Amino acid sequence: MFIDLLIEKIKEKNNPTVAGLDPQLDYIPSYIVEKYKNKSVDFFEACAGAIYEFNTTIIDSICDLVPAVKLQLACYEMYGVQGMACFQKTIRYAKDKGLLVIADGKRNDIGSTAKAYSAAYLGKTNAGGLEYSVFDVDALTVNPYLGYDGIEPFIEDCKKYGKGIFVLVKTSNKSSGQLQDVNTQDGRFIYEIIADYVNKWGSELTGKYGYSSVGAVVGATYPEQAFELRKLMKSSYILVPGYGAQGGTARDAAKSFNKDGLGAIVNSSRGIMCAYKSEKWRGIFNEDSFGNAARAEVIDMRDKLNNEIDRLKSC
Amino acid sequence: MFIDLLIEKIKEKNNPTVAGLDPQLDYIPSYIVEKYKNKSVDFFEACAGAIYEFNTTIIDSICDLVPAVKLQLACYEMYGVQGMACFQKTIRYAKDKGLLVIADGKRNDIGSTAKAYSAAYLGKTNAGGLEYSVFDVDALTVNPYLGYDGIEPFIEDCKKYGKGIFVLVKTSNKSSGQLQDVNTQDGRFIYEIIADYVNKWGSELTGKYGYSSVGAVVGATYPEQAFELRKLMKSSYILVPGYGAQGGTARDAAKSFNKDGLGAIVNSSRGIMCAYKSEKWRGIFNEDSFGNAARAEVIDMRDKLNNEIDRLKSC
Repeated sequence: MFIDLLIEKIKEKNNPTVAGLDPQLDYIPSYIVEKYKNKSVDFFEACAGAIYEFNTTIIDSICDLVPAVKLQLACYEMYGVQGMACFQKTIRYAKDKGLLVIADGKRNDIGSTAKAYSAAYLGKTNAGGLEYSVFDVDALTVNPYLGYDGIEPFIEDCKKYGKGIFVLVKTSNKSSGQLQDVNTQDGRFIYEIIADYVNKWGSELTGKYGYSSVGAVVGATYPEQAFELRKLMKSSYILVPGYGAQGGTARDAAKSFNKDGLGAIVNSSRGIMCAYKSEKWRGIFNEDSFGNAARAEVIDMRDKLNNEIDRLKSC
Repeated sequence: MFIDLLIEKIKEKNNPTVAGLDPQLDYIPSYIVEKYKNKSVDFFEACAGAIYEFNTTIIDSICDLVPAVKLQLACYEMYGVQGMACFQKTIRYAKDKGLLVIADGKRNDIGSTAKAYSAAYLGKTNAGGLEYSVFDVDALTVNPYLGYDGIEPFIEDCKKYGKGIFVLVKTSNKSSGQLQDVNTQDGRFIYEIIADYVNKWGSELTGKYGYSSVGAVVGATYPEQAFELRKLMKSSYILVPGYGAQGGTARDAAKSFNKDGLGAIVNSSRGIMCAYKSEKWRGIFNEDSFGNAARAEVIDMRDKLNNEIDRLKSC
């Protein structure tokens, strides 16, 4: 099942870092973009070609170091049908390199439609007795605004196909509190109510390490809430966005871990993809060595996170 | 701007019905599916071909009667890259027939990612000084769980490109209350808090008829809440799902209209697409006349809605 595979890969690589492949064309070295612009008359085909070369180089550079990659669907949808083809090819490439793949789509809808989304990402599409996997990722992020019957189809496919979901609980953005921090009549915040649902929804998907394939998204930018949510959702794996470019530190991200050193994966997207042009790595890497820059950043992030996790274990 | 165009088309056709093109392969007459199965060895290509023929026949049959179609993204994503190509082609076909197109994607993410979603559906994707429309629909449904900074990029594109959004407020599914009906400390339900945000977010997008291009989704399956929300969001157009197959009646849907006869559009998907095999039209239509069946259902729905709207006006 997803959560056991994830934990085994984290242990094998001694790294809870997830590399976010959320490419935008201006993240990509200009010599790659130029190459595909010259190759193709179609704008989106050129973009998709450049993104795929960029993605696969990053994957090659870090696949021995990270357990998983996270692909932000919006960044592929914005390049149209060719973008979606690039999304699909990147998933296959990453899986061939032994990585788990999380699609960050924050999908949500009523039951019958959630079933279609789940078929697209976790399950299979069937027609007339034939069944085919579509994008076939290992896990998908989902939005809980519609309640359980919009989540259930994903959970059914998690059971059937050994997949996972991460439910948005407390997101990393600055206005996440407008809804998520609303205080309810029973004294709980909305994010605490959703946390309780995550526990309930994940109860039948607990794996051999005591964690469930129904995880939660809790941003590194809210370390206090993360600390509290860690205690509330004891058996949920927490996907932590907001590290690096969004301002979250390793110490902030560590709030989402348990004392067993497990319980969370920390995503960095821009920090890894754009390492080659960051202040931090200036003078060491350049456009031509963007893969090595990504690798250096992943190692640095891994070590910082492991330091914080070690502190936590010894407390 | 979107909302003015929508109102003008509603007036022109005297019909607030939106036809939902949420195709699943088992909605489609078997002779069409067989034809494409025989034509193509690729499963998804065959599915996309059958869906496109089905969609365009439905559009041809009803384009003089309805102001808009609503395409459920999940139903295209489940057929992979070819499904997304079919989505794109259907959008173009519908626009060529003078219809407004709403993409039902319930998209949501943090600001920088919401910007990518908005580029994909409402705005343009740009790179190196070049700018291209991607799926280029007239309006998109969005999920408010992340608060304003996840909504703002869509609103910016609504202003810039004359587009619209519909924010989920009270959805039609049975468990929508798990989060949306939670009572908060100030005595309001969550859906009322979101309704207030919709008013605020839409305040700069009001058109010449007094309605805003920031609309709301309120299910026909919750007529009492719809009645209350209608009063709370005076200048929002309400997209009403849940009519027909989900149990909502014309009288239920009418709760979302104002006394001016405007203020809402009512979606029916299965009811229209599958009219040819419904109990209601049995013996009158069959597989070969699925387009005529859709047309008959649209006319019936239009008349039922207009009857209720007339009652409302005379109250």
